Amino acid sequence: MGTPAELAGIVGGMGPLATVELMYLVIEETPAACDQEHIPLLVYNNPQIPDRTKAILGEGPSPVEALVESAQLLEKAGATFLAFPCNTAHYFLPEVAAKVSIPIIDMIEETAIEAEKSGISRVGVLASDGTVKTGIYQKALRKRGIEVEIPDEKHQLAVMEAIYGVKAGYDLKDAEKILEPVLVYMNERVDAVIAGCTELPMLLKERTYGLIVIDSLRVLARRIVERAMGTGKSKSNK
Amino acid sequence: MGTPAELAGIVGGMGPLATVELMYLVIEETPAACDQEHIPLLVYNNPQIPDRTKAILGEGPSPVEALVESAQLLEKAGATFLAFPCNTAHYFLPEVAAKVSIPIIDMIEETAIEAEKSGISRVGVLASDGTVKTGIYQKALRKRGIEVEIPDEKHQLAVMEAIYGVKAGYDLKDAEKILEPVLVYMNERVDAVIAGCTELPMLLKERTYGLIVIDSLRVLARRIVERAMGTGKSKSNK
Repeated sequence: MGTPAELAGIVGGMGPLATVELMYLVIEETPAACDQEHIPLLVYNNPQIPDRTKAILGEGPSPVEALVESAQLLEKAGATFLAFPCNTAHYFLPEVAAKVSIPIIDMIEETAIEAEKSGISRVGVLASDGTVKTGIYQKALRKRGIEVEIPDEKHQLAVMEAIYGVKAGYDLKDAEKILEPVLVYMNERVDAVIAGCTELPMLLKERTYGLIVIDSLRVLARRIVERAMGTGKSKSNK
Repeated sequence: MGTPAELAGIVGGMGPLATVELMYLVIEETPAACDQEHIPLLVYNNPQIPDRTKAILGEGPSPVEALVESAQLLEKAGATFLAFPCNTAHYFLPEVAAKVSIPIIDMIEETAIEAEKSGISRVGVLASDGTVKTGIYQKALRKRGIEVEIPDEKHQLAVMEAIYGVKAGYDLKDAEKILEPVLVYMNERVDAVIAGCTELPMLLKERTYGLIVIDSLRVLARRIVERAMGTGKSKSNK
């Protein structure tokens, strides 16, 4: 047996459901016919990490200490690279990266690269208030020549209600309904939206009003599979 | 922040999908209204653990070394108790328990206790060839005065085909169809069946032919939540 060459460390719990969804997507993106062909994952679902959006808005404690604790626990246990299934947490990534010696997959950059590869020129960003305020998506997209549309105040409120509804365990059908006017709004302005919060893709499976959805969580899952198996080998990117 | 009082260590990867399903059930069974109220989990999805059924039937290498490796990695990283989301692996539990110093939740015993509490007198066991052959469920149930029904050879073959279909990533609808005649067979003989393989509950959500289903994976999820939160606090056992 022995330790595998690459072991993905997942800094999870932001929220717990998004972490589970990422693991599911990793399995779905892995070309495997039996248990033993899947890739190893070490996951710390640590829900004690303080709310990222509240910290960015100055309404709560910083999550950096808890993020570093999780990352260091995974590194010490044998992880060879890290992934953070939380878009908002990416704002704090430089501070975490400075405290570990293994690489971190940047979900924001990888999602912007995916948008660029798809040839999309105008994209809407659906994300938490925290992510929107930091401008991490706007920056990553604009430097690739992609125009960015952010929901107006009223629709951004609906995005936040949907996100926190998922975290609180709402019926997904109810959360989908909350998001509906946002998709209508975006459909009048752009061709594609980034599901830029890990709580959103599960609400964008049924009705998308003709919008292309770029799922940041699925992009992260593909990069994890490709890195763990050697490059370019996830199911959707053979 | 600091380390939580209890940290569940999940020896996962047998198969990877069952581990993800257990994590999902843990979230579902946790009374939480925001990220921070969920319970912490440390999960090692190690798919390199050799096939448990093959080992029991003398057709493959023992999984004990890999199970011990996983368990020790989790203990060293801070887990305060362990759970194994694989029924067949429970046959090897005494050997693993001897090599760690933290307690292990026994899914087989806990499932038998659940059957006893429900007042069921005759129960069918749907499990892998390995689990059936070891007799771990039969023993745990019979010592509680519960009669046990095992599928005949033809129907046991169908159970195995459904289980390995899930592991290989079959469409769940196809795997459900494979299991159908087994449920008809059991319905003529017993009132309840134990979903005694972690790949089976996902096939027993729609049509169960009037059979009560005792889901071993959900029982394990409840015990994890109760232990992590202090006793008796999962959503279905208030």
